[in-house]
Amino acid sequence: MGQVKKIGVLTSGGDAPGMNAAIRAVVRAAIYHKLKVVGVKQGYHGLIHDYIEPMTSRSVSNIIHQGGTILKSARSQSFRTPEGRKKAFENLQKHNVDALVVIGGDGTFTGARLFGQEHNFPIVGVPGTIDNDLYGTDYTIGYDTALNTVVEAVDKIRDTASAHSRLFFIEVMGRDAGFLALRSGIASGAEAIMVPEIDTDFKQLNKFLEKGMRKDKNSSIVLVAEGEKISGGAIQAAERVSKEYPGYDTRVTILGHIQRGGTPSAFDRVTASRLGVSAVEALIDDQKSIMVGLVNKEVVHVPFNQALKHKKKLNPTLLELTEILSI
Amino acid sequence: MGQVKKIGVLTSGGDAPGMNAAIRAVVRAAIYHKLKVVGVKQGYHGLIHDYIEPMTSRSVSNIIHQGGTILKSARSQSFRTPEGRKKAFENLQKHNVDALVVIGGDGTFTGARLFGQEHNFPIVGVPGTIDNDLYGTDYTIGYDTALNTVVEAVDKIRDTASAHSRLFFIEVMGRDAGFLALRSGIASGAEAIMVPEIDTDFKQLNKFLEKGMRKDKNSSIVLVAEGEKISGGAIQAAERVSKEYPGYDTRVTILGHIQRGGTPSAFDRVTASRLGVSAVEALIDDQKSIMVGLVNKEVVHVPFNQALKHKKKLNPTLLELTEILSI
Amino acid sequence: MGQVKKIGVLTSGGDAPGMNAAIRAVVRAAIYHKLKVVGVKQGYHGLIHDYIEPMTSRSVSNIIHQGGTILKSARSQSFRTPEGRKKAFENLQKHNVDALVVIGGDGTFTGARLFGQEHNFPIVGVPGTIDNDLYGTDYTIGYDTALNTVVEAVDKIRDTASAHSRLFFIEVMGRDAGFLALRSGIASGAEAIMVPEIDTDFKQLNKFLEKGMRKDKNSSIVLVAEGEKISGGAIQAAERVSKEYPGYDTRVTILGHIQRGGTPSAFDRVTASRLGVSAVEALIDDQKSIMVGLVNKEVVHVPFNQALKHKKKLNPTLLELTEILSI
Amino acid sequence: MGQVKKIGVLTSGGDAPGMNAAIRAVVRAAIYHKLKVVGVKQGYHGLIHDYIEPMTSRSVSNIIHQGGTILKSARSQSFRTPEGRKKAFENLQKHNVDALVVIGGDGTFTGARLFGQEHNFPIVGVPGTIDNDLYGTDYTIGYDTALNTVVEAVDKIRDTASAHSRLFFIEVMGRDAGFLALRSGIASGAEAIMVPEIDTDFKQLNKFLEKGMRKDKNSSIVLVAEGEKISGGAIQAAERVSKEYPGYDTRVTILGHIQRGGTPSAFDRVTASRLGVSAVEALIDDQKSIMVGLVNKEVVHVPFNQALKHKKKLNPTLLELTEILSI
Repeated sequence: MGQVKKIGVLTSGGDAPGMNAAIRAVVRAAIYHKLKVVGVKQGYHGLIHDYIEPMTSRSVSNIIHQGGTILKSARSQSFRTPEGRKKAFENLQKHNVDALVVIGGDGTFTGARLFGQEHNFPIVGVPGTIDNDLYGTDYTIGYDTALNTVVEAVDKIRDTASAHSRLFFIEVMGRDAGFLALRSGIASGAEAIMVPEIDTDFKQLNKFLEKGMRKDKNSSIVLVAEGEKISGGAIQAAERVSKEYPGYDTRVTILGHIQRGGTPSAFDRVTASRLGVSAVEALIDDQKSIMVGLVNKEVVHVPFNQALKHKKKLNPTLLELTEILSI
Repeated sequence: MGQVKKIGVLTSGGDAPGMNAAIRAVVRAAIYHKLKVVGVKQGYHGLIHDYIEPMTSRSVSNIIHQGGTILKSARSQSFRTPEGRKKAFENLQKHNVDALVVIGGDGTFTGARLFGQEHNFPIVGVPGTIDNDLYGTDYTIGYDTALNTVVEAVDKIRDTASAHSRLFFIEVMGRDAGFLALRSGIASGAEAIMVPEIDTDFKQLNKFLEKGMRKDKNSSIVLVAEGEKISGGAIQAAERVSKEYPGYDTRVTILGHIQRGGTPSAFDRVTASRLGVSAVEALIDDQKSIMVGLVNKEVVHVPFNQALKHKKKLNPTLLELTEILSI
Repeated sequence: MGQVKKIGVLTSGGDAPGMNAAIRAVVRAAIYHKLKVVGVKQGYHGLIHDYIEPMTSRSVSNIIHQGGTILKSARSQSFRTPEGRKKAFENLQKHNVDALVVIGGDGTFTGARLFGQEHNFPIVGVPGTIDNDLYGTDYTIGYDTALNTVVEAVDKIRDTASAHSRLFFIEVMGRDAGFLALRSGIASGAEAIMVPEIDTDFKQLNKFLEKGMRKDKNSSIVLVAEGEKISGGAIQAAERVSKEYPGYDTRVTILGHIQRGGTPSAFDRVTASRLGVSAVEALIDDQKSIMVGLVNKEVVHVPFNQALKHKKKLNPTLLELTEILSI
Repeated sequence: MGQVKKIGVLTSGGDAPGMNAAIRAVVRAAIYHKLKVVGVKQGYHGLIHDYIEPMTSRSVSNIIHQGGTILKSARSQSFRTPEGRKKAFENLQKHNVDALVVIGGDGTFTGARLFGQEHNFPIVGVPGTIDNDLYGTDYTIGYDTALNTVVEAVDKIRDTASAHSRLFFIEVMGRDAGFLALRSGIASGAEAIMVPEIDTDFKQLNKFLEKGMRKDKNSSIVLVAEGEKISGGAIQAAERVSKEYPGYDTRVTILGHIQRGGTPSAFDRVTASRLGVSAVEALIDDQKSIMVGLVNKEVVHVPFNQALKHKKKLNPTLLELTEILSI
C-alpha cells in the first residue's frame, strides 16, 4: 500500500450517541498526524454516490456533545453487490483516499471486511452501537449513554408505578443481545430482567411474582430485552402475567428510539475520543481489517474476522446480582 | 360547619409530577395556620378503608423534587356508590377531619363534588394532571414537567431521525385533549402536529409531506395526540402515510408512561406550592366545592360545577404557529 | 418608511437559552410573510463592522434546542457613539435592510431606542435574558430555563447538604433583581431567600436559624441573589452566619455561568417562538420602538420608553410563600 | 472471630452519588445470605454515639437512584483517639455486630484499618468518592456521576462562551488528584487541562493560547483541577492569563458542590451494586482489612495497607489525547 496520506471517515448502520465524538477524534488525529481527511456522508451509500467532502478541524468543532452523526447513516443494498463496491472503490481513488475509518456495528464491519479484501483497501473499524454486542471490546460507543437513558426512563416510570402499585414491563433495545437490558435492569433496581441469553426467565419471574403478592409489594419493574424469545417481548409477557396473576395491575412501555439519541455520556465521549485517535494511528501503523476496541482500559486491535465470528457473552456475575438485589 | 380545625389531604387519579410539592404545601400551610393535618393514602380508596395518618412538617421534608405521590393514588369503584361514600364520611368523622384537600383531575373533582354535597363536607380541589385539560386554570400541576419530558424525548429522537433521514410519528398523552401535543410540538420544532380538536390534520400533513419531498428534507417529526381521532393514533397515521408516500421511511414511537414521572420542573413546583397553600387558606376562609386555579398569574376559585361543565380550549394562536415555523 | 421588505435580526447583551428559538422564529416568520431576512453576527458590534449575511429557513434548522446564540453576542462601545450608530445605519442601508428585530435585555433596548430615533429606523425588541427583569412582559426568554438549571443544581447540593447536615449559601444570578432567586428558592424548597428587593433578610434568616438549631434540622439551603445588598453576596452572608451561629457548618457555592447555558425548556422555546413571530408581524404592521412581551398569556406591544422606565416588581405572594413553606 | 452473623454498614467522609446504591446492595446481600444487618448513622461519629438501627429489605427500597447517603456522613475527631474507638467497639458489641462494611475514601479506610487492628474486628471497605483517587480499583463509586455532572456543566458554559468568544477557566474537584479534571476535560472537549500531576501546564497553555489568538478561535475552555499547584487554582490561572494575553476575555467558574450530588449514573449504580454485594460476601468468606475494588471488570480484594500506601496514576494515554484533540 505504501504510506497513508489521505483517509476517509464514515458512519454506518444504526446511529449511536458518541459517533460525533469519534468523528471529531478521527478528523483531528488525522490532521495532527499531517494526513488529509475527508468525510463520507450516509455511509456506504455515500461512498457509492460520491458524497465525499474535505474536513477540517473546524468541521468538527462543537459536535462532541451532539447525539446522532453529522455524517449521517444509511442502508445500502448496492454495497452488497460487487458492482456497488467497485463504484465505491473508484470514488475513493478519484479522491485519492487511501484508507478508511468506519464507525458502526457488525453489519458495518461485515461490509468493510469484504470491501477491504476485494480491493486490498486498508480499513479500521470503530465500534459504535448502543447494543454493546461486539466481540473484542468491553464497551461499544453509545452503550453507556443508552444505559443512562434507559435508567432515567425507568426512574420516571417507577414514580408512577409506585403511585399506583403497578407491575410494569419495559422493553428495551439490544437486538438479539441482553447487555442493555441486564445492566440497565440492575442499575434501575428492576425486580426481574428477561434477556435472550437465558431460557428460564419465566420460572424466575413466577417465583418473584408469587413472593411479591405475598409481601404486598408496592410496585415492580420487569425489564424485557427486545430480543427475548420465550415470551416474545414485553407486550406478550405482560399478557401472560395478567392471565396467570390477575392480582397484578400490569402496564407496558416500549422505550423505542429515545434510546438511540441524546447527548453522549462522559464515558462514551472519552471512549469515542480514544478509539477515534487509535483508529487513525492504526492506519498510520499500516494496519487493516481490524476493529479498535477497549479491553481492560487499554486499546486493542481485533481482526474483523474475530470480531464478527465470536459472540460476546453476558457477565454471569451480573446475572446473579438481580436475584440478590430484588430480595 | 363551624371553623376548620383538622384537614385531610389526598391524591387521586393519574399521578403527575408536582403532586408531592402540592402535598408539602398543604401540610405546611395547615401547620402554619395552626390546623391539624392528616394524609389519606391511595385516594378515595384509602378514605373508605381508613388509610389515614397524621402528618407533620417532617413528613413532607425532602419530597418537593420527587415525582409520583407519597400518598399514592388508586381507583375506587366503591366511592361511586352511596355506601362507599358513607363509609368514607364515617372515617373522616372518626378522625375528626372537618375538611379535605383533593389533588387530581376531573374524575377526582367529580367524586369530590358529589361527596361534598351528600355529606355537606367542605372540599377544595387542586388541579394535578399532565393533560392540562381542566377548565378554570391556565396550568395544571404536572403539565410543564410533562412538556419538558416530551420535548427532551423528541430531541433525542430527532438525533436519530436526522442521522437516517426518517419521518417519525410520536404519540404523546393528553387523553382527549391536545394541550400536551400542541405545546410540545411547537417546542420540539415538530413539522406537523395532530390534535383531537382539529379535523383537518391530514390535509395539512399531506401538504407538508409533499413539500418535504420536493425539498428533500432531512428528517421530520409529527406529534400525534393519543386522543387524535381521524387517524386513530400514531401507528395508524404512520401506516397511512407509508402507503400514500412510499418515499418516506417512517417510524413510530409511543412515549408512554415516562410522561407521568420525573422530577417536577421549577414551574410545576412553584405552581403546586402556591395552589397547595391557597387550598388550605380557602378552607380557612370557609370555602367549599371549589378548585383553586391559576389564571393570569393569580390564584382563582372555580366552583367544581364550572370546572367540570366547561371544556378548556386550545390557544388558536399556537395552532397557527406550527404552520409558520415549519416552513 | 414605506413597507418592510427586508429585515435583520441580532442578539445582544448577555446570552440566554431560547435565543436560538427566537432567531428561528424571526427568520421563518419573515420567510412565511415573504420578507427577506439577514442575520447580524455579534450584535451591535457586527452591525458596525458589517457582519451581515442572508438567512434561509435552513440556516435555522436544528437550532431550537441549542443554548447560546448562533448569531453570537458582543459588547460594543462604539455603538454608544453617534459615529458608531451612523456606520451601523449605513451598513443596513447598504444591505437594503429596512427594519430590525433585536433580541436581548434592557441594554439592548436602550441602544435600539436611541438608534431608532436617530435614524428613524423601525426596531422591535424581543426580551431575552435569564434575569426576567424587564417591565412589560411576564416572562423573558431564558428565565424558565435558568430557573430549572438553578433548581437542578440546588437539588444536587441538597443531597450533600443532607448527608452532612450543613447550611449552604448558594448565590444565583439576576443582576439587581431577585426574580431568579425568589422563584428558584421556592421551587427548590430553600429555607431562606435573600433578594435585593427586601431589606429585612437578616432578621428573617436569624429567626429561621435559631428555630433550626432548636429543631436540630438536618440541612438548610439559603438562596442569595447576586444583587443582594445587605450582606453583599453569599460569601459574606455565610461568614456573618458562621460568626453568629458557630453551631452551623456553613458552605458557599456560586452557581455562575452554568445558569446562562443549556438546552432551553419547553416553556422558553414556546415563548421564544411566539415572540419571534410576533416581532416580525409587528414590523409588518408598521410598528416601531416597541418590545413584544407576554402578559397574561397574550402578546403585547410595549414602547421601549415604558419597558425601560419602569421597574418590574416581585410578586409579593411569592415572598410570603417561603415563610409558610419553610415551617 | 468465628462466623459472621450480624453486620453493620456505614458511610463516612465526603458523600458521593451511588453510596445509597451500595448501602442497598450491602443490606440486601446480607439478608440474602441470612445475616442480620444494622445501619450506622453519621459514620464513625454514629458508631461512637450509638446511632445504630436495624435495616430490612424495605429500608433500602427506592433509594438506588438517590444522591447523598441515607445513613448520612460526618467527621469524627473522637474516632481518632483510642478512647473513641473503644467506645465504638463497645457499641458494636452491645448490638452483637461482628463485622462492618464501611463506604468511603482513604480517610475512612485509614480509620477502619486502625480500628480493625486494635480490636481485631473484620472490616471491608467499599470505595466511594468522586475523586477516583484510590489505588487498587479502576473506578470509585461516584466518579462516573461526577464526570457527567462536570461535562454537563461545561456544555452549558460553552454555550455562553461561544456566544461571547470568551476564555473560561473552570475549576473542578478532585482534591490532590487530576482524575476528574482529566477525563471531564477530554469529554467536554476542553482546549487545555491543568492537573496536579503535571508541572508543565503553563507552557502548554501558553502554546495553545498563542495559537488560539492567531486562529481567532471562538471560545475556549480550560479545566483546572482544584489541586493544581503551579497556578494555585482557576482564579489565579485566569488572572495570570489576563495579564499575559490581554486579548482574551477571561471568566472563571468554580463548579463546587454540585459535583458531589445528583442521581447516580447507570455505571455508578452497577459498580455500587457489585461492590456492595462483594463486600458482604468477603466478610462471609472471613476476609478483613480489605477494600473491594473493580479491576478490569472483575472484583478484587485489596488490603487496606496497599490501597492506602500507593498513589493511583493518571493514564498517560489520556494526557496525550488533549493535545491531539484540541488541534
